[in-house]
Amino acid sequence: MPTYRAPIDDYRFLLTEVFDTAKLATYPGYEEVTPDLLASVVEEAGKLCETLLFPLNMSGDAEGCTWENGVVRAPKGFKEAFKQYADAGWIGLACDPAFGGQGLPIVMRYVVDEMVCAANLSLAMYPGLTQGAFETIHVHATADLKAKYLPRMATGEWTATMCLTEAHAGTDLGMIRTRAEPLDDGSASISGTKIFITAGEHDLAGNIIHLVLAKLPDAPAGSRGISMFLVPKFLDNPDGSLGAPNGVSCGSIEHKMGIKGSATCVINFDNAKGWLVGERHKGLKAMFTMMNGARLGVGIQGLGLADASYHSAVAYARERLQGRSLSGVKNPEGPADPIIEHADIRRGLLFMRAFVEGARALTVFCAMHLDDEFRSPDADARAHAADLVALLTPVIKAFFTDFGFECTNIGLQTLGGHGYIREYGMEQYVRDARIGRIYAGTNRVQALDLVGRKLPEGGGRLLTRYARLVAEEVAASRAIPELVAHADVLAAAAKQLQEVTMTLGMRAMKNGDEAGAGASEYLRFLGFVAIGHMWLKACRTAVERKAAGGTFDAAWYDTKLATARFYFTRMMPQCAALAAAVQAGAAPIIDFPKDRF
Amino acid sequence: MPTYRAPIDDYRFLLTEVFDTAKLATYPGYEEVTPDLLASVVEEAGKLCETLLFPLNMSGDAEGCTWENGVVRAPKGFKEAFKQYADAGWIGLACDPAFGGQGLPIVMRYVVDEMVCAANLSLAMYPGLTQGAFETIHVHATADLKAKYLPRMATGEWTATMCLTEAHAGTDLGMIRTRAEPLDDGSASISGTKIFITAGEHDLAGNIIHLVLAKLPDAPAGSRGISMFLVPKFLDNPDGSLGAPNGVSCGSIEHKMGIKGSATCVINFDNAKGWLVGERHKGLKAMFTMMNGARLGVGIQGLGLADASYHSAVAYARERLQGRSLSGVKNPEGPADPIIEHADIRRGLLFMRAFVEGARALTVFCAMHLDDEFRSPDADARAHAADLVALLTPVIKAFFTDFGFECTNIGLQTLGGHGYIREYGMEQYVRDARIGRIYAGTNRVQALDLVGRKLPEGGGRLLTRYARLVAEEVAASRAIPELVAHADVLAAAAKQLQEVTMTLGMRAMKNGDEAGAGASEYLRFLGFVAIGHMWLKACRTAVERKAAGGTFDAAWYDTKLATARFYFTRMMPQCAALAAAVQAGAAPIIDFPKDRF
Repeated sequence: MPTYRAPIDDYRFLLTEVFDTAKLATYPGYEEVTPDLLASVVEEAGKLCETLLFPLNMSGDAEGCTWENGVVRAPKGFKEAFKQYADAGWIGLACDPAFGGQGLPIVMRYVVDEMVCAANLSLAMYPGLTQGAFETIHVHATADLKAKYLPRMATGEWTATMCLTEAHAGTDLGMIRTRAEPLDDGSASISGTKIFITAGEHDLAGNIIHLVLAKLPDAPAGSRGISMFLVPKFLDNPDGSLGAPNGVSCGSIEHKMGIKGSATCVINFDNAKGWLVGERHKGLKAMFTMMNGARLGVGIQGLGLADASYHSAVAYARERLQGRSLSGVKNPEGPADPIIEHADIRRGLLFMRAFVEGARALTVFCAMHLDDEFRSPDADARAHAADLVALLTPVIKAFFTDFGFECTNIGLQTLGGHGYIREYGMEQYVRDARIGRIYAGTNRVQALDLVGRKLPEGGGRLLTRYARLVAEEVAASRAIPELVAHADVLAAAAKQLQEVTMTLGMRAMKNGDEAGAGASEYLRFLGFVAIGHMWLKACRTAVERKAAGGTFDAAWYDTKLATARFYFTRMMPQCAALAAAVQAGAAPIIDFPKDRF
Repeated sequence: MPTYRAPIDDYRFLLTEVFDTAKLATYPGYEEVTPDLLASVVEEAGKLCETLLFPLNMSGDAEGCTWENGVVRAPKGFKEAFKQYADAGWIGLACDPAFGGQGLPIVMRYVVDEMVCAANLSLAMYPGLTQGAFETIHVHATADLKAKYLPRMATGEWTATMCLTEAHAGTDLGMIRTRAEPLDDGSASISGTKIFITAGEHDLAGNIIHLVLAKLPDAPAGSRGISMFLVPKFLDNPDGSLGAPNGVSCGSIEHKMGIKGSATCVINFDNAKGWLVGERHKGLKAMFTMMNGARLGVGIQGLGLADASYHSAVAYARERLQGRSLSGVKNPEGPADPIIEHADIRRGLLFMRAFVEGARALTVFCAMHLDDEFRSPDADARAHAADLVALLTPVIKAFFTDFGFECTNIGLQTLGGHGYIREYGMEQYVRDARIGRIYAGTNRVQALDLVGRKLPEGGGRLLTRYARLVAEEVAASRAIPELVAHADVLAAAAKQLQEVTMTLGMRAMKNGDEAGAGASEYLRFLGFVAIGHMWLKACRTAVERKAAGGTFDAAWYDTKLATARFYFTRMMPQCAALAAAVQAGAAPIIDFPKDRF
């Protein structure tokens, strides 16, 4: 049976030692925030994840959701656990207190997300989009809509969805056919069918608030003619109580590879009443408030599942006796050595660990920049942070889900044949992790977003800003003798990244396919550099705290350094291969005769 | 819905143009064999796979196997399809005609295997181990046992298993507890419980012949005290008809991630009657006759599933309209371009194709050396071939299943969200492919076999012999101007492989963990070289045949060259990263404090 242990210590390290969370108290609304407060929130959330959500993870997978005549039921126990989770205020954790939220920094939303997704991804999907919908409505909707919907979303009394995809239009939303006919009362009548709607229908909450992309009659063609509407499952009575059902129904749920406890719905809108959110024809822009958060959130799912798989793999590797270590017997009293004594098993565990801890640091780094972007009193800092978030969002989404999937596979592999058996729980992590590479924009779309939008922006401003931070970290770390070698590795990779960026940019100007052909490998390269950046920063903190005294004992900091060593020596070499692949250019791909595939 | 198209053309290319199959006619027993005969056998088998086995693939997954009071039922249609397949003689294809086989070259067993596994892996598992058991009994058993069991195995009237694993002993077979008590009549009484027994119990055949590893009372401890026994499900009457049930029962079947149509059984032996196969206490050696074939077969499963996934991914990519090509509109009449126009989609398809065709060539190359090893009249050729097979078997098993899994994931990803939905069939390929990295010895075990046994053998004789073949191919290809660049890439990789081999060998002499820490990446490196070797050879054939005239048109040969170009420019760069990881050595792994994981 798998185990889950929330990463309390690692988050305490990140939130109280590595990153300057004390500065958050200078932001309006965060006056009460202290590093210790944040660490104790993690502890509370971690407990809930371990004891409330995790125990329902395997049973939820085995049972799945049911659909009957339009009614969807989540697996046993989900409704009660969701209520307990919502009642404790976790859904509105980082939401505006003016609308019922807890008003904690944005970074905490993502920190808690990691643990919730690790403990029970399917269950996490029900409240998962509600925070993003809250933000979207908060930023783009009228005061009326905000007052009516936000407070009950912050408490989890109601949940929310994002309705984008149609059967013929996934990546290419310009082709959607859902129509919005304006009505005299200022609302609109929405008709169309959306697919792949996460938590589109379920029995956990009293109402479901759909944010729906649709086209008004006078819409320009393509993606510039899309508007966003708020479409509730139930309309409301004048007194605020739930009113008549709206024209929204669930046509079916999907049979999926994983996240079986999460209802993925076909949602039919038949003259459903909806209200415009944001400007007419500018719904895609409004939706990106939600989408960017969703992309970070999906990346973090990869991180969480990797961590969950890691703990179970370690526990198995300590207990399973098989063979003798190649460097001599380690367990002479037993019939064989625990497999954790085998170098290749340890290699797998270290790969998982080095990814997880590095990715976790990058999560905090990026999410703290969200707080800077939205709450810093300093306009320059806001602009700077917005750039970093824009650059890193596709990287986190794609790199974390690719490597999260890889890590869950290493976890499965650690158990040998038992990893393939359902009762051990490791194959569920693999199946659940697989969706992250697809939804909220496939990883290919993330790569194109990075290379086609984020890199060219402002003449390369985003990467230039980011590269400066990396260079600063390299310089600071070079002052510490035991970090020089790591700093050199990162510096070399960062330099090569600049060269590859230049080459890619020059070529893409001549032929757009050059960008497409190199995008995925380029994103991965940047991901390695970004996690390397975090590892260097974490190492510097570890060395300093070990010397000066910190929350943990010396051995704890040494473990950080040992994990970093694996990352820099055994994982970073990938960068050279990725650079070479990008440098090979598009010709070997686009010259292939397409009718011969 | 997925599609499957048997790779008839590619096999015709390999069997009649790339490899010298004409020489097989000079081997005793193969006098009638011609290249065209082999190609037409592929065509026949391909048809059967497309029309008989493939249509049951998805239904078999959805239904799975059932176990009730010891009785196991395969999914609907399996029994009838198996019978038709067996009746047509396919199970005994490469078996000795003296015992009911068809007597075709060994290479054909693996060629047909690829297509059978691609079409329906679960169904393929029922006859899958019977050929290997046939060989094992053929080589190691008494004339009596051979006469009694082989003819009915060759026809598929009876199937066979290999019973190795016990709950506490998988990789480490020295710890097995199954006991064999000698009986006065020369047989033995077998008692113990085996797990993970593929096709251990089912309703497709009249009898099941288990090859069981057990320990005799006077057995030395560990793996040198293991004997192999033939234990039938039903004993036989003096007249050859089926007699009383033996003490063999199926305790349960596993709930697995994939290959759900294949029954994976717990098999209990309670004083079951068995007969020694091979020498007392030397059962592991005898079992390796079977295991080596099984390892090649499992590798080929990875190849087959990659190919199956490829065809469905291509079909979807041609039809699915989404977005516009970055190099300009390609489908102006339609609302969007087919996604095959997007460079990154093509990159994925080419990755699959380059792996599949390269791996297929390596399959034929290796399997033809099996014919050399067992049928060549020339003793030197036999010894040489045995070395190559020994070296390449772990590479094919591990590399093909790792990359097969990766390819099925690329196939799934090509379909975006639809790839995650069961009805599209792509996620089944991923789940089915996942087991290949585990069974018949995990890929980690393959890497240790390569580095710990195959490399040191005879002072590096195996790799030296193999490297000579690679060098010869490089030299021959350098004479063809358009292949010089590819030949240079392969030559550089082969040179670096030698250096890495040297370093690894020197270090491993001092500390066995060095071998373990670098083994998996080393194996992958060798895999890239081996497939590169095949690509170069295929290119040379393509250039020559294009000029001189061959079975195919010029465009067909050009497609080969275009696929090879992708392999050499976009995939081979991986080698540098793998070399660097191996060179980093074991210290970053074994210095990590193990109680801190």
